[in-house]
Amino acid sequence: MGESDSAPTGLCGTDLIIDGWFHERGELWPGQAMSLKINKVLDHHRSKYQDVLVFESEKHGNVLVLDGVIQVTERDEFSYQEMIAHIPLFAHPDPKRVLVIGGGDGGVLREIARHSGVEEIVICELDQGVIDVSKKYLPSLAKGYDDPRVTVHVMDGAVFMEQNQNYFDVIITDSSDPIGPANVLFETPFYKAMHSALREGGIVCTQGECMWLHVDLIQPLVKSIGSIYTSVGYAYTTIPTYPSGQIGFIIGTKGRGECSTPSRNPTPEVQKELRYYTPELHKASFVLPAFARRAIFEDAV
Amino acid sequence: MGESDSAPTGLCGTDLIIDGWFHERGELWPGQAMSLKINKVLDHHRSKYQDVLVFESEKHGNVLVLDGVIQVTERDEFSYQEMIAHIPLFAHPDPKRVLVIGGGDGGVLREIARHSGVEEIVICELDQGVIDVSKKYLPSLAKGYDDPRVTVHVMDGAVFMEQNQNYFDVIITDSSDPIGPANVLFETPFYKAMHSALREGGIVCTQGECMWLHVDLIQPLVKSIGSIYTSVGYAYTTIPTYPSGQIGFIIGTKGRGECSTPSRNPTPEVQKELRYYTPELHKASFVLPAFARRAIFEDAV
Repeated sequence: MGESDSAPTGLCGTDLIIDGWFHERGELWPGQAMSLKINKVLDHHRSKYQDVLVFESEKHGNVLVLDGVIQVTERDEFSYQEMIAHIPLFAHPDPKRVLVIGGGDGGVLREIARHSGVEEIVICELDQGVIDVSKKYLPSLAKGYDDPRVTVHVMDGAVFMEQNQNYFDVIITDSSDPIGPANVLFETPFYKAMHSALREGGIVCTQGECMWLHVDLIQPLVKSIGSIYTSVGYAYTTIPTYPSGQIGFIIGTKGRGECSTPSRNPTPEVQKELRYYTPELHKASFVLPAFARRAIFEDAV
Repeated sequence: MGESDSAPTGLCGTDLIIDGWFHERGELWPGQAMSLKINKVLDHHRSKYQDVLVFESEKHGNVLVLDGVIQVTERDEFSYQEMIAHIPLFAHPDPKRVLVIGGGDGGVLREIARHSGVEEIVICELDQGVIDVSKKYLPSLAKGYDDPRVTVHVMDGAVFMEQNQNYFDVIITDSSDPIGPANVLFETPFYKAMHSALREGGIVCTQGECMWLHVDLIQPLVKSIGSIYTSVGYAYTTIPTYPSGQIGFIIGTKGRGECSTPSRNPTPEVQKELRYYTPELHKASFVLPAFARRAIFEDAV
């Protein structure tokens, strides 16, 4: 994650360190917190946009925290990166041009680069600070920047999309939570802007929060997207260090049916490198528990 | 959960309360902890077998903790209870006699009782203390005891099964973790005892720990069970207040193929009451992430 585009909030990552443990207490998940034991703090500073904390954990590798919220641990990041990238990319029969909004750590770039048919990978990350700490402390993610097809723009994704209409086959928005800086990424105008930047047959896939915590937030967003895009779907992945242990994805299409069945499969060589995604799991990730299916797709529609 | 059958460990639930938060720090998930904010402690005592703590949380309802490990929160318990019960029960075409080992809180009984064809529900819970606190503080689970088909035995499930061979259609083992009291429930002799207590066509479903934490424990167990049972499978459910946000189930059959497809569907009336299980999710719950599928079923077989 890493996209943000407003004034910094007051939250400071080191305030959440007590007795050598980082406690992820946030207003989006009241009454609960994931804690990770810290070996040592590697970096802590305020970037132009947000509070940036990197620590070496006891059991989860290096951990990136923005405004007090865990964005990446080296131990389980593959689940998120693989699913947010490969669901739209394998749902598309032949993606050539891919845009990433946010995703400054580089992990999503790493996954996109596994698709040999992709010709152009563009990333718009607002915060150079996230790119810098990731290159220093999260090399297994930041290696995504090494692919020669990658172009980096340190700028607002919305502005970039205005300048590049009807261009991309897949747009992936790898954002932080809809409170504070990344709030606008969860609003209808941003989904309209992505729609305009897609060419016909294109797919967007965005970080869609957690069904266990935020169906109230997800439901109106899915409804609104459904009125703009040809189809809209919701998938999820398990990831222990995100709040409640899961995170979802909202997938919208432009002139294409829904994305719960892959159009292509990974080659055997690529599948061997993947640790989470499989074509079977692609389909299974759209099958929601009864409570979430009802709340997101039935009750309020 | 709630089955245990050895001497108490030294762990005390209230040792884990710091500044009004319960921190679930355990040796089975080093370096990480789920924390829940406490409104007030409702009960804390040592039963004959274990340390029993019940507290009212700020956002998760009442919470039962045994030997320092969260067993149930009223907010998310339905995911676990529904999946551990309905996967084997709907996989079986006509279950008549069902045995629960552990499960003293009554939540699994509540789910079994939704199956109108079931004639006999037997529970063997070792610890009367768990039954008592659940009836007092977890009435939405303990109402499972109210069904007239339920018989309660406060005794060791292994002893009960020796006395009841070739009898049950479904056996569900709703145990705590394989460290301390419930350790024997994760060993081959216990799986042999369950196999003997099943009649032909029977199914066992046991708490199978977390794929994100314990593939090293799951893999040899699945392999061992595969040598005793006709088929063995592994499914999982998401549940925010269990370590890493998921828990798995090991499903073995006696003279029957694998259980990833339901034999029956819930009636519309029953489906309306279910908050997690659906027939589609039954199938999806057996689809594992690449790393777990490899570690449990491929690499070591």
